[in-house]
Amino acid sequence: MTRKIAILGATGSIGKSTLDLVERNRDRFAVTAVTAATNVEALADIVRRTNARFAVVADESRYSDLAELLVGTNCRAAAGEEALVEAAAGDAELVIAAIVGCAGLRPVMGAVETGKTVALANKEALVTAGALMTDAARASAATLLPIDSEHNAIFQCLAGNRAEDVSRLILTASGGPFRAASSETIDSATPAQAVAHPNWSMGAKISVDSATMMNKGLELIEAHYLFGLPSERIDILVHPQSIVHSMVEFVDGSVLAQLGSADMRIPIAYALAWPERIATPAQRLDLGAIARLDFEAPDLARFPALRLAREALEEGGAAPIVLNAANEVAVASFLAGQISFPEIVRLVHEALIRAEYGAPRSISDVLEIDRVTRDRAKAMMEASCP
Amino acid sequence: MTRKIAILGATGSIGKSTLDLVERNRDRFAVTAVTAATNVEALADIVRRTNARFAVVADESRYSDLAELLVGTNCRAAAGEEALVEAAAGDAELVIAAIVGCAGLRPVMGAVETGKTVALANKEALVTAGALMTDAARASAATLLPIDSEHNAIFQCLAGNRAEDVSRLILTASGGPFRAASSETIDSATPAQAVAHPNWSMGAKISVDSATMMNKGLELIEAHYLFGLPSERIDILVHPQSIVHSMVEFVDGSVLAQLGSADMRIPIAYALAWPERIATPAQRLDLGAIARLDFEAPDLARFPALRLAREALEEGGAAPIVLNAANEVAVASFLAGQISFPEIVRLVHEALIRAEYGAPRSISDVLEIDRVTRDRAKAMMEASCP
Repeated sequence: MTRKIAILGATGSIGKSTLDLVERNRDRFAVTAVTAATNVEALADIVRRTNARFAVVADESRYSDLAELLVGTNCRAAAGEEALVEAAAGDAELVIAAIVGCAGLRPVMGAVETGKTVALANKEALVTAGALMTDAARASAATLLPIDSEHNAIFQCLAGNRAEDVSRLILTASGGPFRAASSETIDSATPAQAVAHPNWSMGAKISVDSATMMNKGLELIEAHYLFGLPSERIDILVHPQSIVHSMVEFVDGSVLAQLGSADMRIPIAYALAWPERIATPAQRLDLGAIARLDFEAPDLARFPALRLAREALEEGGAAPIVLNAANEVAVASFLAGQISFPEIVRLVHEALIRAEYGAPRSISDVLEIDRVTRDRAKAMMEASCP
Repeated sequence: MTRKIAILGATGSIGKSTLDLVERNRDRFAVTAVTAATNVEALADIVRRTNARFAVVADESRYSDLAELLVGTNCRAAAGEEALVEAAAGDAELVIAAIVGCAGLRPVMGAVETGKTVALANKEALVTAGALMTDAARASAATLLPIDSEHNAIFQCLAGNRAEDVSRLILTASGGPFRAASSETIDSATPAQAVAHPNWSMGAKISVDSATMMNKGLELIEAHYLFGLPSERIDILVHPQSIVHSMVEFVDGSVLAQLGSADMRIPIAYALAWPERIATPAQRLDLGAIARLDFEAPDLARFPALRLAREALEEGGAAPIVLNAANEVAVASFLAGQISFPEIVRLVHEALIRAEYGAPRSISDVLEIDRVTRDRAKAMMEASCP
């Protein structure tokens, strides 16, 4: 049976990997809707490859270009946020939610509220709106499938087990480029040093998050909302080779782990075919050749972002939104050479201390807290870096 | 709901661990039948602890002693093979099959043929009668749950997955005491050196099997029958720390692994509670403290038992019975100082070459091939060691 898929963020890295897998399995999948932020040329190419019937560009100023490019196809063009939500809540059974940033919140919520299976690559959905998303998923009987390699690993390890038999989740972390660096080296880190991730090829922002380990802090928050375990039962374990993507410990003392090569097509394929599996061209793991896997406890002194994220999770409410928004502003400033590496976490800490928001009751609340936090963080930075 | 359990081999190491777990979970389990080879005193103690209603001693000469020890209890005493089969095929829903050696074959088959859930700790059931057991299990809808840590690990990794999505099983092996030894050292190994297993505390016979790696060869055969994969899709991977108990690779490139401390209560608890889990007092795994896991391909030149076992598996029919029986005789001779360490595998090889049996069609056939092979192996040894 063919599974109907909407790909939100079809022109990005997750979208491309998804399309690669869909094209290798044309008998199983039909793409019904695709969206992009601005790149209408790439989006029109995808429409031609997939025969999607609905294409949306988020940037409304690109609507006429998209409409023109789709002349002669069976595909309807649209633009703007309402159209993104329409693509997410349409006739697809599975929605690949790969829009980057808070722009993905309303479309993801649209898919969740209509009870779809939602493959989540958008981190903000759970970091900033975790309680809202999971409440909505319970109400609509939507299924959330994580695409992030760590959460996908945990999801795989949980299959066939009861939630009440889980004692602990163990999120693995590469430790980033500064895993073995001294505090002095970290304090003087340049953007070029911070973006040199050892295992995964990633964008600059997420590479800096890996260097501060804030990415693992954000994943801790995601894991809490996805799997429903409290902070104290979610551990972080440094594993420099990034072969073990994460683990689950059960009440009997068994630990299940998911391992694999660093190829996002593995978790995407799992989400596409779940609860079945499909073949991928990802390189097979050869542990005999890899020879050695290392593990160490994370150092909270050198990586204070981990402690900060855990505090934000435990505080709950708006704190994770503030953490995420202040971190984005701070990382952008670091990449622009405006603040030093340790100031990233200091700025986020400052933003958390100053924040006095109630828990968000809607996506609008989330977006408002996000916006205000960004404005304040920029103002804080301008005050300190004249 | 209370689960009724029969423990075949209640006085041995697996039996003791099972009783420990049953006593920690009295609300979940009721022991209905227990058996022992000869130790009637220990068996009577277990009857008093568990209130079992049926106790069997395999050794018929101990019947009157057992009957006397059970005076004043509600437990019926019996002796001999027919009574063992009766205990296995009685009113228990779950049979813990922990009788050592071919003496376990008829009782295990009794449990399988009556459609029970059978937790298998008896290696011979699958090594020597794998096709018969699995055919009988299919016919009666019996469930076979492996207790061996490697096969239990694979069983755990398969939960929640479809059989057709499995691409490969990866059995881990400690490599035994001679993993890093030279061929010369191995050739001159003494019984004392061979029984010094690095990770698990085990009996002398199985310790020697670990030193030759024949144990992993026998487990390869078990894995084939339990999980239905052909020899070429079951790999052996040396992992000296014995933390990863085994792994499964899926068609998407994902590998699931089960890890844990070296405590047999973990796989026994899994079999007892399956498909749920129960708490055990086993030590929790602390990978940060363990720090490092190593893996290497096995060396078939230094460990020819692995090749021999794979050949026996691929030949099928009676070959695994001959492999197992000749190995037992050879290991006993090695432990008695009658043959050298490399002669163990040479003798098994010789027995396989000389064997000309058809595939067994019944447990009687298996027992006959086993008996004849042992006699011949002893005769071969007497001829070569006058």
